[in-house]
Amino acid sequence: MIGLNGRNFLSTLDFSPHEVRSLVQLALQLKRGETTVDLAGLVATLMFFAPSVRTRISCQSSLAKLGGTGIVVNPGSDAYALEIEDGVVMDGATAEHVKEVAPVVSRLCDWIGIRKSELVTQGSTTADVTTSYDELKADRFINAYAKHATVPVINLESNSFHPLQGLADMATMVEKLGEPKQRKYVLTWAWHPKSLPVATPHSQLLAAADLGMEVTVLRPPGYSLDAGVMAAAKDRVESLGGSLNETDDIEAAYRGADVVCAKSWGSLDYYGRFEDEPADKAHLRKEWVVDEPKMDLTGKGIFMHCLPVRRNIVVTDGVLDGPRSAVVDQAGNRLWTAGAVFAATRPEA
Amino acid sequence: MIGLNGRNFLSTLDFSPHEVRSLVQLALQLKRGETTVDLAGLVATLMFFAPSVRTRISCQSSLAKLGGTGIVVNPGSDAYALEIEDGVVMDGATAEHVKEVAPVVSRLCDWIGIRKSELVTQGSTTADVTTSYDELKADRFINAYAKHATVPVINLESNSFHPLQGLADMATMVEKLGEPKQRKYVLTWAWHPKSLPVATPHSQLLAAADLGMEVTVLRPPGYSLDAGVMAAAKDRVESLGGSLNETDDIEAAYRGADVVCAKSWGSLDYYGRFEDEPADKAHLRKEWVVDEPKMDLTGKGIFMHCLPVRRNIVVTDGVLDGPRSAVVDQAGNRLWTAGAVFAATRPEA
Amino acid sequence: MIGLNGRNFLSTLDFSPHEVRSLVQLALQLKRGETTVDLAGLVATLMFFAPSVRTRISCQSSLAKLGGTGIVVNPGSDAYALEIEDGVVMDGATAEHVKEVAPVVSRLCDWIGIRKSELVTQGSTTADVTTSYDELKADRFINAYAKHATVPVINLESNSFHPLQGLADMATMVEKLGEPKQRKYVLTWAWHPKSLPVATPHSQLLAAADLGMEVTVLRPPGYSLDAGVMAAAKDRVESLGGSLNETDDIEAAYRGADVVCAKSWGSLDYYGRFEDEPADKAHLRKEWVVDEPKMDLTGKGIFMHCLPVRRNIVVTDGVLDGPRSAVVDQAGNRLWTAGAVFAATRPEA
Repeated sequence: MIGLNGRNFLSTLDFSPHEVRSLVQLALQLKRGETTVDLAGLVATLMFFAPSVRTRISCQSSLAKLGGTGIVVNPGSDAYALEIEDGVVMDGATAEHVKEVAPVVSRLCDWIGIRKSELVTQGSTTADVTTSYDELKADRFINAYAKHATVPVINLESNSFHPLQGLADMATMVEKLGEPKQRKYVLTWAWHPKSLPVATPHSQLLAAADLGMEVTVLRPPGYSLDAGVMAAAKDRVESLGGSLNETDDIEAAYRGADVVCAKSWGSLDYYGRFEDEPADKAHLRKEWVVDEPKMDLTGKGIFMHCLPVRRNIVVTDGVLDGPRSAVVDQAGNRLWTAGAVFAATRPEA
Repeated sequence: MIGLNGRNFLSTLDFSPHEVRSLVQLALQLKRGETTVDLAGLVATLMFFAPSVRTRISCQSSLAKLGGTGIVVNPGSDAYALEIEDGVVMDGATAEHVKEVAPVVSRLCDWIGIRKSELVTQGSTTADVTTSYDELKADRFINAYAKHATVPVINLESNSFHPLQGLADMATMVEKLGEPKQRKYVLTWAWHPKSLPVATPHSQLLAAADLGMEVTVLRPPGYSLDAGVMAAAKDRVESLGGSLNETDDIEAAYRGADVVCAKSWGSLDYYGRFEDEPADKAHLRKEWVVDEPKMDLTGKGIFMHCLPVRRNIVVTDGVLDGPRSAVVDQAGNRLWTAGAVFAATRPEA
Repeated sequence: MIGLNGRNFLSTLDFSPHEVRSLVQLALQLKRGETTVDLAGLVATLMFFAPSVRTRISCQSSLAKLGGTGIVVNPGSDAYALEIEDGVVMDGATAEHVKEVAPVVSRLCDWIGIRKSELVTQGSTTADVTTSYDELKADRFINAYAKHATVPVINLESNSFHPLQGLADMATMVEKLGEPKQRKYVLTWAWHPKSLPVATPHSQLLAAADLGMEVTVLRPPGYSLDAGVMAAAKDRVESLGGSLNETDDIEAAYRGADVVCAKSWGSLDYYGRFEDEPADKAHLRKEWVVDEPKMDLTGKGIFMHCLPVRRNIVVTDGVLDGPRSAVVDQAGNRLWTAGAVFAATRPEA
């Protein structure tokens, strides 16, 4: 087994591309039944400060299938207001400090999974975030928790990263392409009524980078991803003989692509004033949908999306229901990649 | 083991009476410890779009006792708005299509249980349903999910059926009566402040029918059950040498009954205007309660109810606390019948 | 194994001090790996009518680690309105009587855990309880449930007691002090913006008493604990050669203490009018915080708190982050004491 026991899994950037690919390899071995792992007696506490379907089921189910247990806690937004600042006189809304709760929960279980993303909300068409992107991207909550925990903390999606999604994308591309190295990957922005987080596209971009692909980020002007993540992806992909480019030329990007991965995200420029974005991006709706003419430019390229996806908004029925669509396999791989992360990071026996 | 592996369990009508009775037999064998089943490594996702106590605990507990795992998801009413129509441009409230989520959840687990009943609500005395009965009875959500899922979908209560309750009723009658065939069964309507769903009485009626009993539906004028369900029950019970009748003659129905099963339901005529029902049915309150004088007409008849039951409204303390009451055994059998359904439908090894 | 199979665990007062200490001993043996228990196939239903982090995770995790399963039900405040009175005509808010649901849930699982505390609320700074203390302390709900259940009922915190916390405190003092008998224990009241329940300090007081310590309850005038609990603690501790005293002399109480356990609670005099308490107790804020000068009076005394704790309100950063603090070990022992209770009370094989 790869030796990541006891390590946090907060971002794939905390691991070498080789270590990340080892996790993907372990996931595929578990899926094919080529290896087994026994997590009997081991328990993960999975805290969801934001809603989840796939992440929650894939984590609980993979733990159960490997003999362990996942306990889900839904703290809600206000029911569990934790303090993360030092030296505070706690006479306000926060009733507990992460300095206590993180080591305590660490005594009660073997992993702590945390989803805390200010932009993962439901039921509203505009995001209700007023914090700046620079503040959010620090992921202060999960990082404070990880600092004070004594068992591995697993990122179930933060503001900046969704590394379990990244691993599932990698596993899917290895399955579909064989050797993804230097194959052409396009991460295309898509129009969506709501301003969505950048955590998933960041981890998807890093997934393609860590496979050494020829990576293109296709997005309209004003929709660049985080500069630091782009720079890290470029470093990593170039060290593996691949490349990273950014463009708004749709036709050029699709031409010859092996993989088209679609994802919508809110512009970093609109954090704190997302109510303005829908009107300003309305003109992008028509041109940015993934449809069959665009996919025809790729040759035999596959279509990927993290789900949930809005049909005929992000992608047409024709593409999603057609033979190029890998989305069900991709989401199904969440089971095995989650299992691989729990298996690899578990405490040493 | 009976060979139902991989099949959905949406209604007992999808199975022959013989298959249904085989499930009941398996449940009683599991209860008596005469057979064992190993569900290790198998996981059910149990989605409750409506509240549940008994169904939820009996499913999770039976899975645990057989070595498997039940993951409960409470999607809420709006938090998980799924699209089920074809060809929709999804720029509205629905963020995901059942065409994706059903096959994806199928990859993550081994069964999908779904409770989705528009009339199972709490906290209001009138039901807040405005949809017509003809629309609701189609159970479009669970049927769409089952169509696109690739693992068995288990009905945890829909608008039309509650087949896990039906099986528990059957197991209880087999335990209490020995051979229920041609014994006298009465399903009696009861007054209740609220307009309740017909799913449970439908499945209870079918339970008695599939045991070949002499079945009477006792209800006030205007409270007939679904005509299609009645016709199917009649066909099935007659094929087994029993009978099905409907009446509003309380005394005649109770006389000599071996089983009195009480259940309230809202009149099919009031769907879409349930706010009118309480006043219109007020005159029925006194006459329709199950009390000791009525039970005395039966001889040694047992009293059944699916629970929860309102005391001294549906049934008197005297009956419920007396020796005729089978309600605790009946609800207790939910554990074993749920276990039997998971065991029988599980994927082939 | 200690022979408590099938017994409820509602309060440590229902057991002899010897039995209580046997549970603590079992917990420490489980923690040190000196004994093992197999709860395979056994299931606890854990009902939380009030929020929980530590209790919930420690119960579910300890069950999982011992091979069993904990099913969590969050009935909410109104979603599961149970009737507990006899003879009621149930045409109001309550839809089910504890006479049915308690024996039914008993058929579906092997233990029933219940947290029902009117004062455990969140999101408000004053408690919204209007019931008198004399009414609340009867714990009528959990006692009615225990009366009608046929499997052990485990108190996960009621209005009067939090016995799982008491056991964890005992285990921690045994670990830290070796033989706690006749060592000096101080339970000190602390100022807190909100009026908190007395369940935890009651069980903490009883924990020290059952270890035969020299026990002091340090509190301002008007903040005496329940007279019946104090009398019972006095009886028990004196039978073991210890003592129980009550004082408001802070310096005298701290001097030479081996253990300082801090806890805030609302005055019994303010039940039904808690909105008046914050102003009336404002003058206590400064004097009652646990700080380093006070702890220096103890010599080498350890600091305990059940958590969550408000920093620099109940206790200063210096004490909590210093070497005297036992709070993480104390909360961590919740895992093993919960496991010991499930193991000891489980049904006979």
